[in-house]
Amino acid sequence: MFENKERTDINELGEFGLIKHLTSHFEIKNDQSVKGIGDDAAVLDAQGKQILISTDLLLEGIHFDLAYVPLVHLGYKAVQVNLSDIYAMNGVASQITVSLGLSSKFPLEAVEEIYKGIELACKKYNIDVIGGDTSSSKQGLVISITSIGYVDADKVVYRNGAQENDLLCVSGDLGGAYLGLQILEREKLIYLENPQVQPDLEGKDYIIERQLKPEARRDIVALLADMDIKPTSMIDVSDGLASEILHLATQSDKGITIYEEKIPLDPMTYETARELGLDPTVCALSGGEDYELLFTISQEDYKKLKHDVDITVIGHVTDKNSGCKMISKSEKVHELKAQGWNAFKK
Amino acid sequence: MFENKERTDINELGEFGLIKHLTSHFEIKNDQSVKGIGDDAAVLDAQGKQILISTDLLLEGIHFDLAYVPLVHLGYKAVQVNLSDIYAMNGVASQITVSLGLSSKFPLEAVEEIYKGIELACKKYNIDVIGGDTSSSKQGLVISITSIGYVDADKVVYRNGAQENDLLCVSGDLGGAYLGLQILEREKLIYLENPQVQPDLEGKDYIIERQLKPEARRDIVALLADMDIKPTSMIDVSDGLASEILHLATQSDKGITIYEEKIPLDPMTYETARELGLDPTVCALSGGEDYELLFTISQEDYKKLKHDVDITVIGHVTDKNSGCKMISKSEKVHELKAQGWNAFKK
Repeated sequence: MFENKERTDINELGEFGLIKHLTSHFEIKNDQSVKGIGDDAAVLDAQGKQILISTDLLLEGIHFDLAYVPLVHLGYKAVQVNLSDIYAMNGVASQITVSLGLSSKFPLEAVEEIYKGIELACKKYNIDVIGGDTSSSKQGLVISITSIGYVDADKVVYRNGAQENDLLCVSGDLGGAYLGLQILEREKLIYLENPQVQPDLEGKDYIIERQLKPEARRDIVALLADMDIKPTSMIDVSDGLASEILHLATQSDKGITIYEEKIPLDPMTYETARELGLDPTVCALSGGEDYELLFTISQEDYKKLKHDVDITVIGHVTDKNSGCKMISKSEKVHELKAQGWNAFKK
Repeated sequence: MFENKERTDINELGEFGLIKHLTSHFEIKNDQSVKGIGDDAAVLDAQGKQILISTDLLLEGIHFDLAYVPLVHLGYKAVQVNLSDIYAMNGVASQITVSLGLSSKFPLEAVEEIYKGIELACKKYNIDVIGGDTSSSKQGLVISITSIGYVDADKVVYRNGAQENDLLCVSGDLGGAYLGLQILEREKLIYLENPQVQPDLEGKDYIIERQLKPEARRDIVALLADMDIKPTSMIDVSDGLASEILHLATQSDKGITIYEEKIPLDPMTYETARELGLDPTVCALSGGEDYELLFTISQEDYKKLKHDVDITVIGHVTDKNSGCKMISKSEKVHELKAQGWNAFKK
């Protein structure tokens, strides 16, 4: 990957030198960040708000494949995936810690690429990198990010607050990230068979971007606050719509019914699914990695958001005994099952 | 390792099932923990204090060797290593998140052993497990822990506050963890050559325990508060005394002089070093992993702690130009260099 480029051995810098090299130009932007990198721990001031903490572990060969994921995108996505959890609590993310395990095949330039992506995401989302750990790895690349956010105590939205007759809403569109992955996997196989063939990604830019460079929906949290809507429950779509619906329903002790025709699909998602012989609805239900927000609102709040093109009402909350189901376009009733992405099945 | 015992495949549980199985009996003990495991993020309330965040990444083959580290000890140590960073800021640790990457060779019973150690440490130190991530790993075992602590804004102790003429103090004794590791490495080699030979760890219990089951010095933070001492600077000894002294001196823009004869060594540490042909002082200076607290206090505070047997004054802070040095037992002056444990040199 870096054969023809400059290669600087990480060992020349040592652990402290490497962290300094990678992070010394990062500026602290949030006034909750009292002390960032450089001591035993970071120091934060919540200024009276509640603190949200979320953490993710990303492992080479399980969560990403360096054969087709550019390192700068990997860094960017690793941050987004984590921020998404903070937004799913209705909070504002302000800090992350970044830990990297680097195999010896990684020159300094490769680590700089990862950090370039991290920095890009942090700039765009106003996030301070306040700590982390860097180590060599005898295995593949390991990325562990912890994100920290803030929210007023009365504004936290949990998964368990959905009430009967609430409306189920989702931001953006679904299934694109999964189909982007299918295209990347297909091109990788073609490349492995014949390295002369250039990857054919033409006309697939949107779904490839959904896979490689997802955007956590901070804007939706801000939009809901502007509309004076506090969702009754919320979760981010990381494992697929069906799996997330089951989480909201189970934790709220309710049932949820959705309508297939309401599920928002981008035309490129739809066409690519058809092209690959896949059911677009199944891609949305089980694909995952869309990082959209799925939330329930009370019926009174419907009028506040009904004209927003970026939020779609796809169903409603029912009593527990009705279970979780989808009414298909042909008006058949399907029970929803979690067949989402499961790191243990890969 | 688990050949003759019961083996349950982790895949049977799935990711959510595994987390639930491992953590459902954990009780939330701290009232800052508003919401623990089970939502997109944990919710904490700092109750007016400042928040301390520290994170560590532990990788098989780099930070630990499963050939001689029992899994229960590994879980215990992973927590201690992290808490130590919170105490080094003069804070009280209250929560951790735990992320595990598990290779397929690990049955459920092995993961339970790791969690048994984590739970033991959390019980003893009054820590809530509030989140985490669990995934399969194509590589070895990956452990990433983030710890969260609290401290009054005016009680935070940084590395950069040491003043000229301050006294340099260290808790407990040094070098033991490193010599414990040497003994374990020796016995591993003997075992690899001849698996019939039982490991000979007799009379080495203290230093083996220092390596396998270190205790973060929460008690020292409490003791200093009881004595009404706020250190001017503090760090924990993870990389070896010399490296930590250089951190305090560099960040405080001062020099530090220590006296070899003052460095606290346990008799077993001393004897084992001699037995292995090592210099006991070098083991303390460069060994690392002792997780003692190294701190500076103003001279006025000396009378408050001079009778405490668990704290030793080993030197003092000088002007920057004097640099960092050790006066040997034979009154020779040695410049201190960081030759501490460096994950990139292994």
